[in-house]
Amino acid sequence: MKLMQLYASLKSDLQKIEDLLAASVSSDLPLLGESAQHLLKAGGKRLRPVIVLLGGKFGRYSLDRIQYAAAALELIHMASLVHDDVIDDADTRRGQPTVKAKWDNRIAMFTGDYINGKALVVASQLENPRIHQILSGAIVQMCIGEMEQIRDFFNTKQTVRHYLRRIRRKTALLIAISCQLGGIAAGAPEAVCNLLYRYGYQVGMAFQITDDLLDICGTEKKIGKPPGSDLRQGNVTLPVLYALEEPGIREELLAEIARIRESEDAADSSRAVKLVRSSQGVRLSEKLADRYTAKALRVLEQLPDISARRNLADIAKFVAQRTY
Amino acid sequence: MKLMQLYASLKSDLQKIEDLLAASVSSDLPLLGESAQHLLKAGGKRLRPVIVLLGGKFGRYSLDRIQYAAAALELIHMASLVHDDVIDDADTRRGQPTVKAKWDNRIAMFTGDYINGKALVVASQLENPRIHQILSGAIVQMCIGEMEQIRDFFNTKQTVRHYLRRIRRKTALLIAISCQLGGIAAGAPEAVCNLLYRYGYQVGMAFQITDDLLDICGTEKKIGKPPGSDLRQGNVTLPVLYALEEPGIREELLAEIARIRESEDAADSSRAVKLVRSSQGVRLSEKLADRYTAKALRVLEQLPDISARRNLADIAKFVAQRTY
Repeated sequence: MKLMQLYASLKSDLQKIEDLLAASVSSDLPLLGESAQHLLKAGGKRLRPVIVLLGGKFGRYSLDRIQYAAAALELIHMASLVHDDVIDDADTRRGQPTVKAKWDNRIAMFTGDYINGKALVVASQLENPRIHQILSGAIVQMCIGEMEQIRDFFNTKQTVRHYLRRIRRKTALLIAISCQLGGIAAGAPEAVCNLLYRYGYQVGMAFQITDDLLDICGTEKKIGKPPGSDLRQGNVTLPVLYALEEPGIREELLAEIARIRESEDAADSSRAVKLVRSSQGVRLSEKLADRYTAKALRVLEQLPDISARRNLADIAKFVAQRTY
Repeated sequence: MKLMQLYASLKSDLQKIEDLLAASVSSDLPLLGESAQHLLKAGGKRLRPVIVLLGGKFGRYSLDRIQYAAAALELIHMASLVHDDVIDDADTRRGQPTVKAKWDNRIAMFTGDYINGKALVVASQLENPRIHQILSGAIVQMCIGEMEQIRDFFNTKQTVRHYLRRIRRKTALLIAISCQLGGIAAGAPEAVCNLLYRYGYQVGMAFQITDDLLDICGTEKKIGKPPGSDLRQGNVTLPVLYALEEPGIREELLAEIARIRESEDAADSSRAVKLVRSSQGVRLSEKLADRYTAKALRVLEQLPDISARRNLADIAKFVAQRTY
């Protein structure tokens, strides 16, 4: 409810960012893969732009400047989605990837590169070297996070700490710098920008844990795909790691994960999902997500008491909201 | 000969750039795909860094600054090589890409992203917004060039103009901005930087045409792969386009290209290569490459007569050198 009011209050600014996003990728549109066009039109929550705008409220808010930070962050996010999807679609014929499938994958890869490039073109409008240092550093960390995730597929020996480090890189960092760069682009004091970063980091961690919980606890209707998709892909998430620590669950869950790993085609992960649901993994993960949310709210208390602060609090609460 | 003297004279500066390249990608080295490590160790001519350094000689040459431009350009080039190679390696089992093959391709893709990110981290050391604008613009154009190349695979109706536009984006632009950014990072006058850009552009065009000629006229020993690799992949290059304009060649060449296109496995392109070799395509392509080289040399005449100018002339002549 509060979120809807927030989006309504930011509506005209978000529309301008939407226009900027469209303009950024539209001049060469015929060349763009359908995935990218689809992605742009599909919209999404535009969480990162909203957070950039709110971060900017702590400085001299000027949409003329801040729009470039907001659009750049969303483009970087979009590019990472395109690259996430690239290889999975591979199509084969007679045991060989078809030339067409190869092309489409390469087109998709270069589309991701292109959107990333456009993000930097947009960001370079701000003419602030610090912004480039922060952006490029985050891009590097995100890539490492993606590589870690792939390397850790089906790794049931990883620790919770390992998982947290990975989602920090993969998700939390980009949300953290969204908030921080909003402040920087608006010339907010450095101490404020640092607090914005910390708020975004905690929210990002809660966000990813909640997302991983949804994949275990959500219904297909709710999450738009069968639950257990992460495990099918090999992605061992927090509730699974907690469940693996539970003596009565561990052995059977390990065997299920090994079975999924061995299967050549898309494996059924419903038994593994049931095991995790029946474990303490869900409750413990919820607890950890709540702890990150509480930390985010505590960081906000140190910021000036303006309406954007209340909006950020609403976002923190919304992000960790779970209706399975 | 002259080139060896040039490399010798730049040796200590190039070594520092080599160290910077290694440092840029080594901190997270265990995570990097073998391709990237291999790429770094393989070395190569480091054409772009050399051109950056020479561009810098037209301003207040300071390796402390210019090294960042040189390393950034080489990293962008390396990232593009990694992404070029990604999809082709796809491995399949029982009609499905193996999980392992999928991972490796994704790792390679994110390795390219990572190297690109590192390029920007390095470039952001220069704290010059103009450099970011030029770099990001070039990255976008390179992606469009890559996508154009894929879209134009086996397109025998494309024109020479089409081909030239593609190689401008894919190759010439990065060499152009290498020279320009060398000048900019060294604070050379804008008019000089513009000339450096134009020189680099002409050299880049000659370079790519010569490279495409080598694939037709070179021996396997000389080019390290069987000639005709471009055509096997579907890449219709300048000598082929010229050959297609020749009445006595056209029909058979079209049929050969159609046959290569239809074949599921790696096709034999040796007949097509023979046809192109027997046409006027080689001579006409050589002529066009020479024209770009001549233009590059003419641009140099407008630059201050310092030793770097002679070095750039040597590079232009070397790049277009053909010993099939």
